[in-house]
Amino acid sequence: MSARYETPAGLDPEGAVARLITELGRLPGVGPKTAERMTHHLLAAPRHEVLALADALRAVKERIRFCQQCCHLTENDLCAVCTDPRRDPTVLCVVEQSRDLLALERTALFRGHYHVLHGRIAPLDNVGPEHLTLDRLVERVRQGGVLEVILATNPTLEGDGTALYVASLLSGHGVRITRLARGVATGSVLEFANNQMLADALQGRQTF
Amino acid sequence: MSARYETPAGLDPEGAVARLITELGRLPGVGPKTAERMTHHLLAAPRHEVLALADALRAVKERIRFCQQCCHLTENDLCAVCTDPRRDPTVLCVVEQSRDLLALERTALFRGHYHVLHGRIAPLDNVGPEHLTLDRLVERVRQGGVLEVILATNPTLEGDGTALYVASLLSGHGVRITRLARGVATGSVLEFANNQMLADALQGRQTF
Repeated sequence: MSARYETPAGLDPEGAVARLITELGRLPGVGPKTAERMTHHLLAAPRHEVLALADALRAVKERIRFCQQCCHLTENDLCAVCTDPRRDPTVLCVVEQSRDLLALERTALFRGHYHVLHGRIAPLDNVGPEHLTLDRLVERVRQGGVLEVILATNPTLEGDGTALYVASLLSGHGVRITRLARGVATGSVLEFANNQMLADALQGRQTF
Repeated sequence: MSARYETPAGLDPEGAVARLITELGRLPGVGPKTAERMTHHLLAAPRHEVLALADALRAVKERIRFCQQCCHLTENDLCAVCTDPRRDPTVLCVVEQSRDLLALERTALFRGHYHVLHGRIAPLDNVGPEHLTLDRLVERVRQGGVLEVILATNPTLEGDGTALYVASLLSGHGVRITRLARGVATGSVLEFANNQMLADALQGRQTF
């Protein structure tokens, strides 16, 4: 929740400037001060640049839908990954959100397909299994052709719980179920690693 | 200048999502990572909220112009300050930008009128006196009725230079010319104040 923008005297509280500051202030990580700075930037920016942003916003809401196969974002029936013939459909990587998919794609290491759950099981937020795209995932596995399902939910309490639930759903379908390796993060320092991170790293130690 | 957004595989580089990330990345202080986070927020946000932002952007470019008297932002011929009968038209406060005006308004201490220069003289950026609204300022003073002009340009090299130039333009018009007090900033610590700040504070010391 962003703080409400308090219009100073010298600015019409119902006017276009105050409205833009309020709307920008709804973006994540944007408070009233930042929204004001952005608005002054946009006031000075060329007209076509501001209209391009307005159009891009509109286009995203009008054109983006979910891939009929993996539920990733797309403007067509199937997404860029599902339609790529070079990718391996026998390995499915299950992620919570499309942004996790994009983060994994950025490594350029995974060449299989995905399944986007669009959330994680979170009883405290009233998100149950029925809110996720689990039916479609089970259906994909049931249709055959999938040999391995990698659980790539976030390494949080809720992500782990969701992974556990997905694993139980898919057990008995004859697929190999794996999850992302846990351990110390490359570039981090042991001194500041928390207990769970070090415990994971010890338990999962690898031959050197 | 924001870094260009590198589309990961799994996202159409010409598509609506990539376009929105690119456009948001042009905002000040928004890099590719933040733009991506904002885009995912907007994808999940209610349709009306996203369209409200798009409309606000469009409205700002279509409706906002400059006050015919003081050059502040307005949607009419005259701005909210110039049309307020309770304000004192004999004192003019000269600021670089409308955002400076709004910062001063937020203190609710100044009850006079303003003049917005829309910039400062900056030879290195090829901004000369002819790019500012100086003609209109001189005209306002020449028409009479103004007793004091407060120079409230930024306390920077270019702001000070601009103040000096404005003062020389207005000298001989029989108005009192003042500038904002300089000194140590309330809430700051002397230990970290720079030399110029301390020198200003010593020179301008006040009876206690």
